[in-house]
Amino acid sequence: MRDTYHEELDALTDRLVEMTRLVRSAISRATTALLDSDLGLAEGVISGDKAVDLAHDEVEASVLDLMARQQPVATDLRKIISALRMAGVLERMGDLAVHVARTARRRHPDSAIPPELRDMFLEMGQISERLVTKAGSVIASHDVPTALELESDDDALDKLQRQLFTKILSPNWPHGIEAAVDITLAQRYYERYGDHAVHLARNVVYLATGERP
Amino acid sequence: MRDTYHEELDALTDRLVEMTRLVRSAISRATTALLDSDLGLAEGVISGDKAVDLAHDEVEASVLDLMARQQPVATDLRKIISALRMAGVLERMGDLAVHVARTARRRHPDSAIPPELRDMFLEMGQISERLVTKAGSVIASHDVPTALELESDDDALDKLQRQLFTKILSPNWPHGIEAAVDITLAQRYYERYGDHAVHLARNVVYLATGERP
Repeated sequence: MRDTYHEELDALTDRLVEMTRLVRSAISRATTALLDSDLGLAEGVISGDKAVDLAHDEVEASVLDLMARQQPVATDLRKIISALRMAGVLERMGDLAVHVARTARRRHPDSAIPPELRDMFLEMGQISERLVTKAGSVIASHDVPTALELESDDDALDKLQRQLFTKILSPNWPHGIEAAVDITLAQRYYERYGDHAVHLARNVVYLATGERP
Repeated sequence: MRDTYHEELDALTDRLVEMTRLVRSAISRATTALLDSDLGLAEGVISGDKAVDLAHDEVEASVLDLMARQQPVATDLRKIISALRMAGVLERMGDLAVHVARTARRRHPDSAIPPELRDMFLEMGQISERLVTKAGSVIASHDVPTALELESDDDALDKLQRQLFTKILSPNWPHGIEAAVDITLAQRYYERYGDHAVHLARNVVYLATGERP
């Protein structure tokens, strides 16, 4: 049987995994809101971000409490500090999903994304969901090879980003500047979201090996 | 006389103030690189970001070391955790200055910013510098009223952002989509930089009062 202290450390990990689920759901719904110009869904992502912020604050409170009561050292200390950092990253991922939802809301009832680019944004959303789901797995498993995979998984988002800019900057771009601005910002939110998922995985690698990938 | 422990805590604060100076200089040089299309200056900001990353890592190492050796509680613990968070925020501010510098480098020898918008970007750069300088002061002084001022100081950046979008989205915009995309991304870097300076100040308020503004 594990003692209370280690149960509390495990609870911290569970909480982080739960946060990956919250922010995966947020980016999924935000992407649908963006593609379908679904105002209700967008509003839900925006108001639902409170749950992510709350989870972040709870991780932070647990960390402070654990430190004051248990005065962890060495590996446990690194684990706790790392949990704090990952909770911060996850909070920012929630914020990025909110930014996508706000883009959808700002253009409603129009869609911010022209029909011929929707498959690219759908793909960015799906890659983002896979990245954060994988990050959640490795937070739970501490599986270093899988954590390292995220570095190259994220390249798919960068590739889509380049394709998107080729479309926007083509002399035949028919949708004007406002659409180009919306798309530029929206793709940046997905790019940052993917980067953050990679940061989560890097934290796991650092925790498991003591080395930064 | 102060004991070694409290000297180490003070050293942590000094290090954060030093980081505000590094990232102020970075955004200042990046803005000049952007406005003057100065490639050498842009490269300097990009390579110089290593110093910011190093300072971040040193704060993190000091924090882990302090925690392991001194097992701080209550106020000191909050102070140390807060230093860790602020070092993370400052590292991201350095990254944003790098993004501005990369925008300048990507368009060199052209300028990413059309002549008639340069005064607006100069102003965004100057507001950013004032915000981070003030954040540095309040990190050192723990002056809550001044820290709270940053919340409204940052509004000036939001106002400039709106003016900029009015220009870009005007039917008479003569610079095409590529310039609009560059400007959209660049203004976002300044907006985020300003937000982060506000976050630094909020950390000071939280430390001093226990309440989040």
